[in-house]
Amino acid sequence: MEEDCIFCKIIAKEIPAEVVFENQHTLAFLDIHPNNHGHTLVIPKKHYRNVFDTPEDVWTEIMKTVHHIAGAVRDGSGAKGVNISNNNERVAHQEVFHTHIHIIPRFENDPHKPWGSKSYEDGAFTAVAESIRNRIT
Amino acid sequence: MEEDCIFCKIIAKEIPAEVVFENQHTLAFLDIHPNNHGHTLVIPKKHYRNVFDTPEDVWTEIMKTVHHIAGAVRDGSGAKGVNISNNNERVAHQEVFHTHIHIIPRFENDPHKPWGSKSYEDGAFTAVAESIRNRIT
Repeated sequence: MEEDCIFCKIIAKEIPAEVVFENQHTLAFLDIHPNNHGHTLVIPKKHYRNVFDTPEDVWTEIMKTVHHIAGAVRDGSGAKGVNISNNNERVAHQEVFHTHIHIIPRFENDPHKPWGSKSYEDGAFTAVAESIRNRIT
Repeated sequence: MEEDCIFCKIIAKEIPAEVVFENQHTLAFLDIHPNNHGHTLVIPKKHYRNVFDTPEDVWTEIMKTVHHIAGAVRDGSGAKGVNISNNNERVAHQEVFHTHIHIIPRFENDPHKPWGSKSYEDGAFTAVAESIRNRIT
């Protein structure tokens, strides 16, 4: 348990949460500031900051829970689909620094828009691919 | 292989792609319409529509690859963090109907903003939680 981590306090039941699913490794509960009603968070019971320091076996357990409940989040919210998302570091809008996955129910007329796209110029496309490949072990 | 699926054609090497990682179960390559440079997609080699019909073992393999390369996508792009996201059904902005996970490098001054939040009124918070719980097997 990490001191001053709100999600660790939820796991320890020091802070209440509307839990929808729990197993040995993970907890799923409603986000209190939802993008849409039914917005659910899945977290590991052990504290990690985000994807970069979460061990593979813990990451896999989180994602099994996401997979297990995604259809229920959709149907239980009356939605037509879901976004599954995970923000890593402040620049990517991470707000609580305990690894968590968002399951966001989506509706035909909700206000959420996709992000815009950029183009690649000259050799930038192959250059960034090579740069990424060189860092994969 | 699903006919007319652009990602199946990439896997079959009928359409070229800038591949950054490949293993037995998954392929990772650059998105040609990136939110930011270095935006990478991870897909299973077998065709599934999205999270709702992807078997757990395939979903787990996809997510292991995401976990394996996320740091390289960040560092290879010169980014400070990443969003990991997965859109399920058209209402959630799914455009290619072959399961895929986005790894989006993020930079301090890029234009992408978080979605706004809604509030819950009256008993809506506990009601949607109960509705989701009732659908989890």
